Amino acid sequence: MPKLIPIPYLGRLYQVEYAMEAISHAGTVIGVLSKDGIVLAAERQATSNLLEQSLDNEKIYEMNDNVVAGVAGHAADANILINQSRAIAQRYLLKYNSPMPVEQLVRRLCDMKQGYTQYGGLRPFGVSFLCAGWDTTFGFQLYQSDPAGNYSSWKAACIGENFSNAQSILKQEYKDEEAEAGAVGAQMTMDDALKLTCQVLSKTIDTAKLSSKKLEFATITLKAGKPAIHVYTAAEIDEVLTKYESVIKPTDSQ
Amino acid sequence: MPKLIPIPYLGRLYQVEYAMEAISHAGTVIGVLSKDGIVLAAERQATSNLLEQSLDNEKIYEMNDNVVAGVAGHAADANILINQSRAIAQRYLLKYNSPMPVEQLVRRLCDMKQGYTQYGGLRPFGVSFLCAGWDTTFGFQLYQSDPAGNYSSWKAACIGENFSNAQSILKQEYKDEEAEAGAVGAQMTMDDALKLTCQVLSKTIDTAKLSSKKLEFATITLKAGKPAIHVYTAAEIDEVLTKYESVIKPTDSQ
Amino acid sequence: MPKLIPIPYLGRLYQVEYAMEAISHAGTVIGVLSKDGIVLAAERQATSNLLEQSLDNEKIYEMNDNVVAGVAGHAADANILINQSRAIAQRYLLKYNSPMPVEQLVRRLCDMKQGYTQYGGLRPFGVSFLCAGWDTTFGFQLYQSDPAGNYSSWKAACIGENFSNAQSILKQEYKDEEAEAGAVGAQMTMDDALKLTCQVLSKTIDTAKLSSKKLEFATITLKAGKPAIHVYTAAEIDEVLTKYESVIKPTDSQ
Amino acid sequence: MPKLIPIPYLGRLYQVEYAMEAISHAGTVIGVLSKDGIVLAAERQATSNLLEQSLDNEKIYEMNDNVVAGVAGHAADANILINQSRAIAQRYLLKYNSPMPVEQLVRRLCDMKQGYTQYGGLRPFGVSFLCAGWDTTFGFQLYQSDPAGNYSSWKAACIGENFSNAQSILKQEYKDEEAEAGAVGAQMTMDDALKLTCQVLSKTIDTAKLSSKKLEFATITLKAGKPAIHVYTAAEIDEVLTKYESVIKPTDSQ
Amino acid sequence: MPKLIPIPYLGRLYQVEYAMEAISHAGTVIGVLSKDGIVLAAERQATSNLLEQSLDNEKIYEMNDNVVAGVAGHAADANILINQSRAIAQRYLLKYNSPMPVEQLVRRLCDMKQGYTQYGGLRPFGVSFLCAGWDTTFGFQLYQSDPAGNYSSWKAACIGENFSNAQSILKQEYKDEEAEAGAVGAQMTMDDALKLTCQVLSKTIDTAKLSSKKLEFATITLKAGKPAIHVYTAAEIDEVLTKYESVIKPTDSQ
Amino acid sequence: MPKLIPIPYLGRLYQVEYAMEAISHAGTVIGVLSKDGIVLAAERQATSNLLEQSLDNEKIYEMNDNVVAGVAGHAADANILINQSRAIAQRYLLKYNSPMPVEQLVRRLCDMKQGYTQYGGLRPFGVSFLCAGWDTTFGFQLYQSDPAGNYSSWKAACIGENFSNAQSILKQEYKDEEAEAGAVGAQMTMDDALKLTCQVLSKTIDTAKLSSKKLEFATITLKAGKPAIHVYTAAEIDEVLTKYESVIKPTDSQ
Amino acid sequence: MPKLIPIPYLGRLYQVEYAMEAISHAGTVIGVLSKDGIVLAAERQATSNLLEQSLDNEKIYEMNDNVVAGVAGHAADANILINQSRAIAQRYLLKYNSPMPVEQLVRRLCDMKQGYTQYGGLRPFGVSFLCAGWDTTFGFQLYQSDPAGNYSSWKAACIGENFSNAQSILKQEYKDEEAEAGAVGAQMTMDDALKLTCQVLSKTIDTAKLSSKKLEFATITLKAGKPAIHVYTAAEIDEVLTKYESVIKPTDSQ
Repeated sequence: MPKLIPIPYLGRLYQVEYAMEAISHAGTVIGVLSKDGIVLAAERQATSNLLEQSLDNEKIYEMNDNVVAGVAGHAADANILINQSRAIAQRYLLKYNSPMPVEQLVRRLCDMKQGYTQYGGLRPFGVSFLCAGWDTTFGFQLYQSDPAGNYSSWKAACIGENFSNAQSILKQEYKDEEAEAGAVGAQMTMDDALKLTCQVLSKTIDTAKLSSKKLEFATITLKAGKPAIHVYTAAEIDEVLTKYESVIKPTDSQ
Repeated sequence: MPKLIPIPYLGRLYQVEYAMEAISHAGTVIGVLSKDGIVLAAERQATSNLLEQSLDNEKIYEMNDNVVAGVAGHAADANILINQSRAIAQRYLLKYNSPMPVEQLVRRLCDMKQGYTQYGGLRPFGVSFLCAGWDTTFGFQLYQSDPAGNYSSWKAACIGENFSNAQSILKQEYKDEEAEAGAVGAQMTMDDALKLTCQVLSKTIDTAKLSSKKLEFATITLKAGKPAIHVYTAAEIDEVLTKYESVIKPTDSQ
Repeated sequence: MPKLIPIPYLGRLYQVEYAMEAISHAGTVIGVLSKDGIVLAAERQATSNLLEQSLDNEKIYEMNDNVVAGVAGHAADANILINQSRAIAQRYLLKYNSPMPVEQLVRRLCDMKQGYTQYGGLRPFGVSFLCAGWDTTFGFQLYQSDPAGNYSSWKAACIGENFSNAQSILKQEYKDEEAEAGAVGAQMTMDDALKLTCQVLSKTIDTAKLSSKKLEFATITLKAGKPAIHVYTAAEIDEVLTKYESVIKPTDSQ
Repeated sequence: MPKLIPIPYLGRLYQVEYAMEAISHAGTVIGVLSKDGIVLAAERQATSNLLEQSLDNEKIYEMNDNVVAGVAGHAADANILINQSRAIAQRYLLKYNSPMPVEQLVRRLCDMKQGYTQYGGLRPFGVSFLCAGWDTTFGFQLYQSDPAGNYSSWKAACIGENFSNAQSILKQEYKDEEAEAGAVGAQMTMDDALKLTCQVLSKTIDTAKLSSKKLEFATITLKAGKPAIHVYTAAEIDEVLTKYESVIKPTDSQ
Repeated sequence: MPKLIPIPYLGRLYQVEYAMEAISHAGTVIGVLSKDGIVLAAERQATSNLLEQSLDNEKIYEMNDNVVAGVAGHAADANILINQSRAIAQRYLLKYNSPMPVEQLVRRLCDMKQGYTQYGGLRPFGVSFLCAGWDTTFGFQLYQSDPAGNYSSWKAACIGENFSNAQSILKQEYKDEEAEAGAVGAQMTMDDALKLTCQVLSKTIDTAKLSSKKLEFATITLKAGKPAIHVYTAAEIDEVLTKYESVIKPTDSQ
Repeated sequence: MPKLIPIPYLGRLYQVEYAMEAISHAGTVIGVLSKDGIVLAAERQATSNLLEQSLDNEKIYEMNDNVVAGVAGHAADANILINQSRAIAQRYLLKYNSPMPVEQLVRRLCDMKQGYTQYGGLRPFGVSFLCAGWDTTFGFQLYQSDPAGNYSSWKAACIGENFSNAQSILKQEYKDEEAEAGAVGAQMTMDDALKLTCQVLSKTIDTAKLSSKKLEFATITLKAGKPAIHVYTAAEIDEVLTKYESVIKPTDSQ
Repeated sequence: MPKLIPIPYLGRLYQVEYAMEAISHAGTVIGVLSKDGIVLAAERQATSNLLEQSLDNEKIYEMNDNVVAGVAGHAADANILINQSRAIAQRYLLKYNSPMPVEQLVRRLCDMKQGYTQYGGLRPFGVSFLCAGWDTTFGFQLYQSDPAGNYSSWKAACIGENFSNAQSILKQEYKDEEAEAGAVGAQMTMDDALKLTCQVLSKTIDTAKLSSKKLEFATITLKAGKPAIHVYTAAEIDEVLTKYESVIKPTDSQ
């Protein structure tokens, strides 16, 4: 994300910075782009035996058939924006009979956010998004947006608590052979991406042992030429964590 | 409920926290999910011989044929939201000729709440809800919502005065064999749920003797494949209290 | 009335508490439910030979054929609400060709009040009501509402100056054989109710001698199966006061 | 007028009290009800040879064929309310083909006033009225209204500067044989009323000699069964003052 | 003008007083009623050789065929009100095919002013008017209005700088034989009125020598039974000043 | 311009004075009326080799075929007003098939400005205009308007930085034989006007040497009975400056 | 850009200055006009290996077929204005079937900006633009606009961080043979312009080595008589940087 310039506006924009601050206490969300899909992973901050985990998707939402989003921040605000985004994507589908391009949806989402920073008598939406999507023009894309309505496109990104920590691990470990040449797409496989995600999670989440209780996972891949979103069950998450135990272990020694 | 992040917004969101504070002085409401229904119990703070108890449902309201809600907070605010929710549920029924799914109704209710936290010149609704409902897709569900418009799904939950106390008892005593595996549904029977509810009430309500004067009870179960809401009469409440006297007694020794 | 929780909202709700404070200086209004009707009595604070008493109903208004209300607080605010309530009740009659149920009318009245506590740029209505009514479903009912829009159902209630004093006398003296069992309806006769009202008035109104100058009386009873509202003339009030002189006398010795 | 309770609302209602204060510096208006009519008299504060007295009705206005009003306070505000009231009365006449009942008109006037005390961004109308009228139901009636929108019915009343002084003289001197019994109507004749008015004026207006320069007079009586409003010319006022010189004289010795 | 009561409203009405203060620094406008017409005279504060005097009517405007007005205060505000008044008068003419009565037009003008003192988010119009007009009912009339929307009818009046000074000279010198008896109309001729106007101007305008550079003059008289407004040219003004040199001279000795 | 009275309004009108202050730092604009046309000249404050001078009319705009305006103040505000004025003039032309009279256009422009000083939530337009125009009724006219919406008609006027300085030179040097008699029109020729303009510019603009880089020039004259506006190119400006070098020289010795 | 006068408005215009301040920390954007086209170059402040550079145009946007813009400031605000500008240009095309003239589009963009500085409850758009375009009337044009809505036409201009530095280099190095004569168009070729751009970038961007990672480039030229916009790929940028290495080198020795 472009460095947020400390803009000394009177009134409104302070609120954006407060919102940013609040998001920096929300559960971490990580997105990693690979050549055949995108991995989204999110940390749940609320964990209780009493929570009905199977129903309660606190952090990851489908926005459209080709877009899945991870959110950090104020859940009620996120609901409003997700509802709106879903409606926008559906209206596009109805009108053009083709799925809405990813950036276009992200842009509409961000324009809504921007409006709430500019008009009096409103507070900005206190929520950041990582949107993972696929369209025929640009393939897999990973966008990050902030409460001010700025967005940018990433190969691997992170929002929420410890995001700067996670970002620096991602920078070190992300493998992108063509990165220097500026070509589109990464050279990691989905397996690499899942492994990297687990590695980052294990170093940023403050817990003795990573488990499906504290995590949500989703992927978007291509199946038969169509984007397929998969939100992991608790069992699947534990399976992934077991598979990449090797990269998770080192946390203990940290 | 997810831990409320102390969001340092200027203006509006402080009001949400004030509303939360107010709710923490309202009469306790407890909800317990069992495999064949849900128990809701609420503490009445206003008790007077002169109150016409049979007419005065202070805490528990039917929202729809398949949803019953317990409220904590500002009663006049609750009335507005319940009226709206009822109308929403009825419009859904009229349009789709099938009862509104529980989460969808809760979400609409929460979106109304969220709006009042974001626009200037309004104060947030000062009320939390425990919504117990049933639909064909997810069976029995228990949702909790706060004044900010956040909601989450629970197996057993508590709002109002002493809610953290009640929450910790629920955690200890709630029996859920499959909880670890993350499966939907609890393994308690309705009898277990009623018993647990009485136990929690006896430890959280500050009174010499629990009686129908200070309590409201409601259940939602399935009768002939259809959800049936039952709001207990004073006599029925006293009957329940007598039945589970054993778990209530220990309060005295506390 | 449920204990008003000192809600620390910024701005609006303080106004509700100020309104409550103001009401506590307004003339007392007492309502007593009996098995065959309801008595309403109100204290006039403004007494002057020059006031045209026969025209000036300061405290008690008919709201509908089946509802009569006593008000405490800001008279001009009360006028607005009474006008609205009358119109609502008439529209109901026109639409359903049956009188509006009492609680439904009270609820509509309270929803209007609630709206004025939630939106900016408005002040809450500075008035409390005691509404005495009858409908076929619940028989005689006595509701009390406050400026915040809360209401509750009572067997005997009091608003205005000295209301806590009056409330405690009512608690002591009110005879309700079935109160413990929570059944609807009281066991007092209208005569008992009138007597109790006089007794309470004599102890709460700060005057040497109760007279029709300082009082308004109204009853709602059933006549030929229909609710009949009777607002007492000065002569009738004095007659009542004479009849129950025995219970009034003790005031002097207080 | 009912004692104005010092309501501690934040914001708006202070404005009402400020308006009341302002009215207490406006020229006195006195109204006296007799068995065959009502006398209105008003003090002009602005007296200058250069004022075109014959055109300049500063204090007394006809509101309808059956209602005449005296005003104390902000003249421009009064104009707005009088215009509105006239239109309301005319619309009523057009619709029902019978003159608008007096209290109904007063109530509409007061509802307008009340609205300006409740909504933000407005100031209350800074004006009190004494409305003298006649209708077939209640005969002659004298209403007083304040800036908050409260009104009450009087046998003799006074607004403006020295109003408490005037009010106490009225109380002493007003003859109303049936006052105790609470019957409608006073026992004074119009002559008695004019005399009493002069007496009160002479004691409340701070001037060496009462004259038509400082006064406005109007009466409403019945002529051939229809209400007749008469606004006195300067000559007629002086004639009245001469006629009742005897009760005016004592002022000097005060 | 009636003495402005120092009304202690919060907010808006201070603004009226500020506007009044501002008007007391504006160029003086004088109006004198005679039995066959009205003289208006105004002081120009801005005098420069470079001003295009023939086009620049700073102080006196025709409002309608039968009304001419002198203004003191904020010129841009005056333009708005004059435009509106002209449109109102023309609409009246169109509708009733007879010129609008003078007081009716003044009242409409004042109602516009009043509105700007009562609603939030507006400032009052910072302008006073002297309106000289003629209609068939009341003949020649001279009205004065202030920023609050109050107006009154005068035989001779003055607004702007030194208005109290001018007013007292007018009081002394104005000849009105029937003033005592309160009859309509003055006994001065137009010549008397012009002379009196010059006399007052010479004593209130702070200049070595009165000249057409600093003055505007207008008259309204009857010509062939119709009102005729005449705005004086510079030459005509100087002619008038020469004619009444005798009453102007004394200024020097003041 | 009439002396701006320091009006002590709360709120809005301070803003007008601030706008006036800002204008007094803007580049000077001078207008000189001659018997056969008007000269407008303006100082550019921004001078850079990199500015595309041929496209960048910073100070002088055509408003209509018969009106050209010079602006001092906030350029973005001026754009809005000029756009509006052009549209107004075109609508007039369309409706009446004759060019809009100059004062009428100026008045509409000023009414727009006035509105922004009276309504809350707006700031006044921070711009003054010198409008030079011609119409068949009044011939050549030069109007000046300020941010408050006041305007006046001048023979020679000046706005912006050093305006009082320029105004006093104009007063001294302006030749107007008939000025005393108040007749319309000046006796200068266009050549005189251009010369005078150069003279004033040389004494008010703070620069070593006047050049087309720092100046804009425009004239309005009659060609074949129709108004012709000519905006000077850089070459033409330099030509004029060379022609009147004699009156410019003295600046150096100042 | 014309020197921004420090306008002391209360409230709104401070916000414009804050916005200006914020822009002075945004990445530099440079525009250079040559005789056969315009070069735009922009500095990216956010550089990360993880950014998907090929999708993320942070600084340069096509506005229309004949206009390309570089932005400095708040990205979310820029998006709104670019969306609007694109729609405006398309509507023009649809209506007139010819591309919108460049200045007309810039003016519409600036009018939108101006509106946000004048109305309450809004904050100004925090973004400046360099718009490079071509139309048949004026050929190639380069406009700069600020948050207040001011714009001006330039041969070479710069916005963002270090803009005054860059501006002074541009002034020194820009070759414009006819500049003195004020003719339209510059005498540089596109090659000269690219070289100059590189030279300025190397002296204003604070980096060890200029690379495509930190830069965006775009040109607008004529191809077959039609405007052609070309946004450079990373490879093309590096190619340009290599080509003009000679003018870039000196930075090191600075």
